Amino acid sequence: MSNYGIDMDDNTLNKLNALFEAKRLEDIITVLSELHPSDIGEFLMHLDEAEKLEVFLHLPTELASDVILETDDSTRQYLIDSLSKRKLTEIVDEMESDDATDIIGELPDDEALIVLRGIGKEESQEVEKLLQYPDDTAGGIMQSELVAIDENLTVEDAIKSIRTVSDKITDLHNIFIVDKNNKLLGSFHVRKLILVPSKTKVKNIMNPKPLKVRVDMDQEDVAKIFQKYDVISVPVVDFDDRLIGRITVDDVVDVIEEEVFEDFYRMAGLQEDDRIFSSPAFSVKKRLPWLCINLLTAIVAASVVGIFQDTIKTVVALAVLMPIVAGMGGNAGTQTLTVIVRGIALGELTFANARKALIKEITVGIANGVILGCIIALLTYIWNGNPMLGLVLALAMIINIFIASLAGTVIPLALRWFKVDPAIASGIFITTFTDIFGFLSFLGLATIFISYLV
Amino acid sequence: MSNYGIDMDDNTLNKLNALFEAKRLEDIITVLSELHPSDIGEFLMHLDEAEKLEVFLHLPTELASDVILETDDSTRQYLIDSLSKRKLTEIVDEMESDDATDIIGELPDDEALIVLRGIGKEESQEVEKLLQYPDDTAGGIMQSELVAIDENLTVEDAIKSIRTVSDKITDLHNIFIVDKNNKLLGSFHVRKLILVPSKTKVKNIMNPKPLKVRVDMDQEDVAKIFQKYDVISVPVVDFDDRLIGRITVDDVVDVIEEEVFEDFYRMAGLQEDDRIFSSPAFSVKKRLPWLCINLLTAIVAASVVGIFQDTIKTVVALAVLMPIVAGMGGNAGTQTLTVIVRGIALGELTFANARKALIKEITVGIANGVILGCIIALLTYIWNGNPMLGLVLALAMIINIFIASLAGTVIPLALRWFKVDPAIASGIFITTFTDIFGFLSFLGLATIFISYLV
Repeated sequence: MSNYGIDMDDNTLNKLNALFEAKRLEDIITVLSELHPSDIGEFLMHLDEAEKLEVFLHLPTELASDVILETDDSTRQYLIDSLSKRKLTEIVDEMESDDATDIIGELPDDEALIVLRGIGKEESQEVEKLLQYPDDTAGGIMQSELVAIDENLTVEDAIKSIRTVSDKITDLHNIFIVDKNNKLLGSFHVRKLILVPSKTKVKNIMNPKPLKVRVDMDQEDVAKIFQKYDVISVPVVDFDDRLIGRITVDDVVDVIEEEVFEDFYRMAGLQEDDRIFSSPAFSVKKRLPWLCINLLTAIVAASVVGIFQDTIKTVVALAVLMPIVAGMGGNAGTQTLTVIVRGIALGELTFANARKALIKEITVGIANGVILGCIIALLTYIWNGNPMLGLVLALAMIINIFIASLAGTVIPLALRWFKVDPAIASGIFITTFTDIFGFLSFLGLATIFISYLV
Repeated sequence: MSNYGIDMDDNTLNKLNALFEAKRLEDIITVLSELHPSDIGEFLMHLDEAEKLEVFLHLPTELASDVILETDDSTRQYLIDSLSKRKLTEIVDEMESDDATDIIGELPDDEALIVLRGIGKEESQEVEKLLQYPDDTAGGIMQSELVAIDENLTVEDAIKSIRTVSDKITDLHNIFIVDKNNKLLGSFHVRKLILVPSKTKVKNIMNPKPLKVRVDMDQEDVAKIFQKYDVISVPVVDFDDRLIGRITVDDVVDVIEEEVFEDFYRMAGLQEDDRIFSSPAFSVKKRLPWLCINLLTAIVAASVVGIFQDTIKTVVALAVLMPIVAGMGGNAGTQTLTVIVRGIALGELTFANARKALIKEITVGIANGVILGCIIALLTYIWNGNPMLGLVLALAMIINIFIASLAGTVIPLALRWFKVDPAIASGIFITTFTDIFGFLSFLGLATIFISYLV
C-alpha cells in the first residue's frame, strides 16, 4: 500500500493484475495480505463474481472478516450469499458486535440462526441484543465492546481491566465509570491513566457530566452531537441510564455523509436505498411513484396553459416564450431551496431567524428578477419588434422569480414545521409552483394586454 | 447543559432569557460558564450584536477562546472586528495553533501582525508557519501541537514527554516516532503505553507503516483517508517526509459535510460561499452569472419551440402539453444525475464501471418512460378525444426520458473526464438537454403527424 495514498499505488495494482492473468492465486494472497483491508475491499469490487469469491476464500479468516466490511454493498451481499454458513460463521466470529450484527441482520432468519449458534456464546448474546434496535438509531450503530469500571476502583484496577480486553477492543478511547447497577457516572480518556498516580480513585479523575446518548436517539442526531462537541466516542445508555454500548466517531463519519446525500436525494424525489448499482427493476419501483406525482403536478401546470389557449392561438410567440419564464423561476427557486435546506441541515436556520432569511431571499429574488427581466425584455424587443411583449415577459419573470424565492424559503420551513423532512420532494413542489405561476403570470398578463400584442 | 442533548435544555434557556431581561449580566455569565462552549456559541448567535459583544467580553478568557471558535461565521466575524487588539491577542494566545491560524488569517495584515507579536513567541512561530499553507490543504487544517519521540527512547520516556505537554494538548491519540532529522518512522496509540513494560523501546511497539498525508494534499482527499481507513488522527509530513503536524478527525468531520454540500451547491448553480445569511448583494452577485447562463440555455430551448410556431398555431393543444414532456424529462434527468454525482463522490462509480451504470440508467429511463407515456397517452385521449395526440405525447416522453437518463449519466462523467468537478452546473445542463429534446421530439413528431392531429 502506498501509505500516502487513498488508493494502492500503480505498481501494486500492476503486479496484482499480472499475477491474476498468470492465475497465481497464492502470490496474489501474499501481495494482498500486505495491504490495508480497505484497499483489498476496493480491489475485490473490480473483480468478476467468480474471482471475488475465489480470492476472498483464500484470505486468512481474520483478514477476510475485515475485508468483507470494507467492500461495497453489492460485493458484500454477493459474498454473504455465496459463502458456506460454516465459513460465514467463522468470519462473523472475528468481528466486533456492531459489525457482526450488521452482517447477521442481512441474512434470512433461518441462516441468521445458524450463524448465531455458531459464534461464541457471549458474542451471540451481544448480537441478539443489538439486533433489536432499529438500524438508524444509536442502538443500531453502537457496539457492546467497552471498558466500564466500578466507581470505587483505582487507576491501577482500570489498567488491569484494559489489559484483559486489549486484544478484543482495538479502538479504545474512553473508560466509563459506572455504579453497581451499571448506571453511567462518568468517563475519562485513556491517556489520563498515565498522568495520575496508580492509587487514584477513578471517580476522582472522571468527567462527572459526560456527554451520552440514549439508545433510541436517531443516528442523525447522534452524528450532530459528534460534530458539535468534537468528540471521539460517546457512551450509549438505556431508558434507565444504564450503560449498554458506545459509538465511535468512525461509525458516525459515514452517517454524516449519508444524511447530507439523503437531503439531496429527497429533493430530487429519490429514495435513499436507490443506489448506482441497484437493479433496474428496483430503481424503477423506487423512482416511479415520485415521477407519477410529478406527472400530476405537470398536468396541473399544463391545465393553467389550457386556460389561455385562445390567447396563445392569437399570439403564438407566447408559446415560444413561456418556457423561459417557467424555467428561470425553477432555477432561481432551486438555488434558494438548496441554500435553505443546507441552512436547516446545519442548524443555521431556525424558526427564530426564518423571517430574516425570508426577507433576504425575497430581496435577492426581486433583484435577480429585475436584472434578468430587463435583459430578456431587450432581447425580445430585438427578436420580435414589439416592446409590449418584452415588457410583459419582464414583468412575468420578476413575479415568478419573486414567487420562486418565496416558495424556496417557505416550503422547506413549512415541511419542517409539520415535522416532515424539509427536503422531501421539495424539488418537485418548487418546480410545480414556478411552472404554475410562470404560466399564470405570463399568459395572464398577455391576456390583459392582448390588444397591444397582436 | 442537558448532557443527553444537542441543544441546551429549555429550563436553562428560559433562565437565561429571564436573566437577560433583568440585565443581570453576572448571573448570565455564571449560568453560561456551566455550559459547553458549543452551546454558548449557539446562544450568542441568537443575540443582538451589542448583546453578543457584552456577553462575550465578560466570559473568562480561556472560555471565550473556545466559544469564539464554536459560534457561526457572522458572529465570529463581528466579534473579531469589535474586540480590542489587546483582548483579541489574549484570546488567540489560548488557542491551539490551527485555530489561532484561522483567526489570524481572517485579520487585515497590520492587525494580524499586532496579534502575532502579542502572543507567545513559540506559538507565533507556529502560526506563521501554518499561515503559509492554503486553507483547503492538509497544511491548512493541521495543528502543530503533537508528541514526537526519538526512535531510541523508551515507553517511560514517552510517558514523561506526554506529562510535560498534557496541559497543552487536549486531544492526544497517537504518539509519533521520528529519527534525529525529524523524519516520520512510525506511530502508536497512546493506550499502548499502559500495555507494555516501561523499558520497551518505542520503535518496538510502533506501527512502522503509519498512514500519513503530505502537507499539500487537498482537504477533500484527507477527509477520504479518514473515512476509508477509519482513523482518529494522521500525521502530516513535508516534501522530505519530515513530521510537521497532525490532523484529528474532528477537523475533518466538517470537511466531509462541506464537500457533499459543495456538490449539490454546484448542481444548483450556487457558489459555496453564498450562505443563508450572506448579504443580498453578495448573493445576487454570486447567483446572477449562473442565472444568466440559464437564461441563455432557456432561449436556446425556446428557439426550438420557435421552429414549430406554425404547428402550434394549427394545434394549440400542443402548447398546453409541451411543458409536461419537458418537465418530466427534467425530473427524471435530475434523479439520474443525483444518483450519479453521489456515486462519483463516494468512489463507487469509476470509468471502469461507467458502462454498467449507463446501461442501468438507460434501462430505468426507458421503463419509466414507457409506463409514464402510457399513462399520459390515456389521460390525453380522455381529455382531448384524439388518440393520435396521446400517442405522439407518449412517444415524445419515452424519447425525452431516455435522453434524460443518457445525459444525467454522461454529463457528470464527461465533466470528470475533463478534470472538471462532475457536479458543476450539471443541473443546468440537464434541464437544457431535456427542454430542448422534449420540445424537439414532441413538436417534431406532432409536425410529422400533423394531419392526424387537426
